Amino acid sequence: MTPDSKTSSALPSRRQLLTMIGLSAGSATSLSAMAALGVTEASTYAGPIKLGGAPKGASVLILGAGIAGLVAALELRAAGYQVQVLEFNNRPGGRNWSLRGGDRYTELGGAVQHCEFDKDLYINPGPWRIPSVHAGLIDYCKRLDVALEPFMQVNYNAYIHNTKAYGGKPQRFRHVQADYFGNVAELLGKVTAQGKLDEALTKDDMEMLTQSLRSWGALDANMKYGASVATSERRGYEKRPGGGLSAAPVLSKPGDFKELLNSRLWASLATGQTLSHHTNIFQPVGGMDSISKAFAREVGSLIRYNAKVTSIRQDATKVTVTYEDSTRPGTPQQASADWCVNTIPLSILSQIEMNVGQPMKDAINAVPYSPSTKVGLQFKRRFWEEDEQIYGGITYTDLSISQISYPSSKYFSKGKGVLLGAYTFGRTAVLDAAMSPADRIKKTLVDGAKIHPQYLKEFDNGIAVSWHRVPWTLGCSGAWTPETRAAHYNNLCAIDGRIVLAGEHASFIPAWQEGAVLSSLDAITRLHERATAA
Amino acid sequence: MTPDSKTSSALPSRRQLLTMIGLSAGSATSLSAMAALGVTEASTYAGPIKLGGAPKGASVLILGAGIAGLVAALELRAAGYQVQVLEFNNRPGGRNWSLRGGDRYTELGGAVQHCEFDKDLYINPGPWRIPSVHAGLIDYCKRLDVALEPFMQVNYNAYIHNTKAYGGKPQRFRHVQADYFGNVAELLGKVTAQGKLDEALTKDDMEMLTQSLRSWGALDANMKYGASVATSERRGYEKRPGGGLSAAPVLSKPGDFKELLNSRLWASLATGQTLSHHTNIFQPVGGMDSISKAFAREVGSLIRYNAKVTSIRQDATKVTVTYEDSTRPGTPQQASADWCVNTIPLSILSQIEMNVGQPMKDAINAVPYSPSTKVGLQFKRRFWEEDEQIYGGITYTDLSISQISYPSSKYFSKGKGVLLGAYTFGRTAVLDAAMSPADRIKKTLVDGAKIHPQYLKEFDNGIAVSWHRVPWTLGCSGAWTPETRAAHYNNLCAIDGRIVLAGEHASFIPAWQEGAVLSSLDAITRLHERATAA
Repeated sequence: MTPDSKTSSALPSRRQLLTMIGLSAGSATSLSAMAALGVTEASTYAGPIKLGGAPKGASVLILGAGIAGLVAALELRAAGYQVQVLEFNNRPGGRNWSLRGGDRYTELGGAVQHCEFDKDLYINPGPWRIPSVHAGLIDYCKRLDVALEPFMQVNYNAYIHNTKAYGGKPQRFRHVQADYFGNVAELLGKVTAQGKLDEALTKDDMEMLTQSLRSWGALDANMKYGASVATSERRGYEKRPGGGLSAAPVLSKPGDFKELLNSRLWASLATGQTLSHHTNIFQPVGGMDSISKAFAREVGSLIRYNAKVTSIRQDATKVTVTYEDSTRPGTPQQASADWCVNTIPLSILSQIEMNVGQPMKDAINAVPYSPSTKVGLQFKRRFWEEDEQIYGGITYTDLSISQISYPSSKYFSKGKGVLLGAYTFGRTAVLDAAMSPADRIKKTLVDGAKIHPQYLKEFDNGIAVSWHRVPWTLGCSGAWTPETRAAHYNNLCAIDGRIVLAGEHASFIPAWQEGAVLSSLDAITRLHERATAA
Repeated sequence: MTPDSKTSSALPSRRQLLTMIGLSAGSATSLSAMAALGVTEASTYAGPIKLGGAPKGASVLILGAGIAGLVAALELRAAGYQVQVLEFNNRPGGRNWSLRGGDRYTELGGAVQHCEFDKDLYINPGPWRIPSVHAGLIDYCKRLDVALEPFMQVNYNAYIHNTKAYGGKPQRFRHVQADYFGNVAELLGKVTAQGKLDEALTKDDMEMLTQSLRSWGALDANMKYGASVATSERRGYEKRPGGGLSAAPVLSKPGDFKELLNSRLWASLATGQTLSHHTNIFQPVGGMDSISKAFAREVGSLIRYNAKVTSIRQDATKVTVTYEDSTRPGTPQQASADWCVNTIPLSILSQIEMNVGQPMKDAINAVPYSPSTKVGLQFKRRFWEEDEQIYGGITYTDLSISQISYPSSKYFSKGKGVLLGAYTFGRTAVLDAAMSPADRIKKTLVDGAKIHPQYLKEFDNGIAVSWHRVPWTLGCSGAWTPETRAAHYNNLCAIDGRIVLAGEHASFIPAWQEGAVLSSLDAITRLHERATAA
C-alpha cells in the first residue's frame, strides 16, 4: 500500500473517525454542545403524539374531516378510542382540496362549475404551500407516504407589476431586487464614507460595513452601482455571454432609482423572506388533497360523508349530534359519543345549536372569516415557460388579480398547463364573490392579459372559487385581531364539558394547515387527559 | 339562466375574450408591444438549430463525447453528415458524470475508488446545476425528454459558518440575512430622516425610500429593527406560533450588528442573487448523466469508446486522427473525415500533436485549468432534514470544505442519504488533489463534523474526485483572464483549416454546460458554412 492509498478499504473506520474528529474538533463536550445547534427555536411539534390508554369503551365523535379532524381521528383511534367522524362533504379534507378535470363544484347561490382541466392538471383552491417550518404537517406527510416536491415562491424571472409605473409594463423581479439592493448599498456606503453615521461604529466596523455593502450590493471599487459584470450577473445582461465567436456579453444598464422608489415595486421584495415563504417550501406531488386521501386510507372507514350537522348537545354523560344526509335532507339522524372534537369552521358553527357556555359561544361569534378568491386557468401551452422562461414562482401586480402563480410541477412539459390566475383577499375577494364564476374568470383573463398577452390566444378553460361562497366554510379562514385574541382565544380552545374545538381557527397560525394539525394535537391531548382522569 | 350564471358554458368564448380584452386593455398596438416584454435580453440560444443540406458524402470526425461533442454529433448527423465520435472514456458525457454504487473510478496516480452508495443515490462530480437562463441545455433536455427538478441553491434554514465568529457556531442563513437587511435599512433610514443624504432626492422620493426601507427591512413604526412579529417572521421565532392553548409565539431577538459585520457571514448572502444561481434552477432527476445518456440513446451508435487520441493531422482534403484503444494500448488506429470538431479539453489537447497554425496553438497553451474537488458522503440517515429541518440548499463555511450541499431530491425519505460534503476551489483544491482519496474524505468528515456533529455516528461511506487528477481533463474547466481572452479567445474559436474547437473552454460561460452547448452550436454552424461553401 502506497501513501496514495488505492482502495476504498483505506477509508476510516467509525472508530478511527471518532478519534480523528475528537482530536481535531476539541473536547467531546464542545461537540455535544454543537449537537444542540439545530434547535435554536423551541419546537411547536415534538414528534408523533403518543396518547395511549383510552378508557375501556370510551368513544369520541369528531365533527369535520378536514386536517384537524383527520389528525384527531388517526390519533384517537390509535389511543384506543371508538371514533366516528361526520363530514359535510362527500370527500375528506375540507379546505385541503384539489380540483381536477371531471370535478363538479356547486357554490352558495347555486352556480355550478364543471372543471375541464386535462388529466393530471389541478388547482388547489385552499392551502397550496407547506412551509418547511410546518413540522407537524410534514411529519404526517412523511408517516403517510405523501410525496412532497418544492413549491417555488420566489422566481427572479417572474414579474412585479404596477399599472401606474414603468408605463404599465411588468418588471422582472431580478431587475427590481438587484437595483433596489444596489442603490440602497450605494447610498449607505456614501454616507458611511462621508462620516455621517453617528452610530457607535468603530473605524473597523465601518470598514466591514463598507466591504459588506460592496459585496452584497454589487458595487464597484468606487462603491458605485452601475453597469458592470457584477450588476449584470444580478439583474441580467443586455446580451448574455455565449459560446464560440461573437459570444462576448453586453452589459445591462441599471434603471433609475427614483423611478423604482416611486413605482412601489419594492413592496413585493419581502414576501419570500417571511418564515412561511422562505426557501424552501413544499407542495404534495399531484395536488394538496394527496394528504387527505392518505389520511382517508387510514381512517376513511370511520367517516360518514354527506353528513350535515344541525345540532350538538351534551349532558353529563355524553354528546349527541343531530345531522342529516345532505343528499337526502329532511330525515334527522343522530350520533353520540362520550366526547366530541368539533372542527367545524366557526363561520358555520355559529349557526348550529350547541349547548356550551357563554365564553365559548362568545368566542365562536367573535371571529369573522376572511374572504379570498382563487381562479385556476388552463392554457393550451405553458407560454410562461416557453416564451418567458418563468418556471414556477409568482408574479405580483396591483391589478385586482393580485398575483399569478406559475405551476411548480411538470416543468418543461409540452402539453397544456394550469396556473393560478388570481389569488385575491379583502375587499377585492368580496367583490369577486359577488360575481358569477364566469365573470370572475373573465376578469382574471382581462387582468392577466395585461401581463401575459398570450392569454388571448392560449386560454382554454378555468374555474373560480370564492371562499365566501363555499357552502361549508363561508370564508377562507378565521380572522383574529389582537383584541379578539386577548378576549376570546383561550375560551375558544378550552374544553367545555365534553366538547373541544380544533382547527386553524383555534391556533396562532390561521389559514395554514399546520394550525389545524397543532390545534388538533393540543385539543386531543387535553381531551385525553380529561377522559383518562374522569 | 339567472345573472349568476350556473354552468360553465357561460365562460367566455375566445372571440368574446378577445373583444373584452381589446376593450379593456386598450389598443391592439399596446398589446402587441407587451408581447415583447418577455424578451428583455437578446437570447444566446435561438431555438433548435437547423443546418440541413450537408454536401453529399461529407463527413465529420468529432473528438470527445462530452456535451459539446454530443450536441455536434446530434446536429451534424441531422444535417446529413457522416459522423464518427472518438471518446476516451467508456461512457458518454465527459464531465457530465454521475457516480453511483458499483461504479469504479481510477484517478491519475492510480488510486482506485469503489463507489458504495445505496441504490438511487449518486453524486455529480462535475456540473450539478442547470440555471434557468441556460436555454440551450434546457432545450436539449426538453427535446430528449430529460426530466428536470428544482435544485435548491439557497435555503434560509441552512447555515453560514465562520470558525472565527460566533464561537465557531454556524448561524442560520435566515438570521444572517434578516439581521443584515434590517440593520442596513435602519441605518439608511436614520440618515435619511436626519437629512444627511445629499442626493438629488425630493421630499417625496425620500418618503418612498423610507417606506421601502420599513417594508423591506421589517422596521417598526419608528424605523427601528428589533424584536417584533415582523422580524421574527423573517429570522424565526424563539418559540413558533402553535395551536390550541399555550400556543402564543415567543419573539426572537436580533443579534448584534457589529458582531455580524465582523463575522463576515454577509459574504455568503449574494451567491443566490447571481444569474447562475437565481431561483429557480434545476437538476436532472436521478443524476446529471441523465443528459448524456439521453444523447447517447440518439447518437450512441456513432461513438467509439475507449479511444485515446494521440495525434490530429489535417491536409488539404481531410483530417486524420490517430488513436489507440485505451483498454489495449500500443496498437495505433486511425480515423479520418472531411472535417473535425475537436472538443478535447485544452489541458489534454495541449499535449496532443495537431497541425494547426500558431495562433490556435498559442491559444490552446494559454488557458490553464482551474482546480476543484468534490466529495460525496453517504450517511445512514438524512439527519440534516430530520434533526435540523434543512431540505436541500447549501451551507457555506470558511473551513476547507467550503460548502456542504444537501440533496435536492428524495426529501423526507427515510433511508440513507448522500450529500456533497466538500466543494473546493483554488489552492485548497490543489492541496486536496495532493492527498489520497481516503485522506480527502477524512478531512471532509473532520471539517463537516464541526457543523454537523451527527457525522460522527451516521457516516457510511464516501467518494472524492479531485479534478486535477481526472485523467481525461486534468482540471475542472478552462480558466480565462481578461488578458488571455483578449489575446487568444478568437484564435481559439476560429476554424483552422478543417478543424474547429468547441467546449466550455471555447465560450464566455466557462465551467457551465451551457458554454459547451453554445460553443458547439456556434462551431458547427461555422463549420457547416465552410463545408457547404467549399
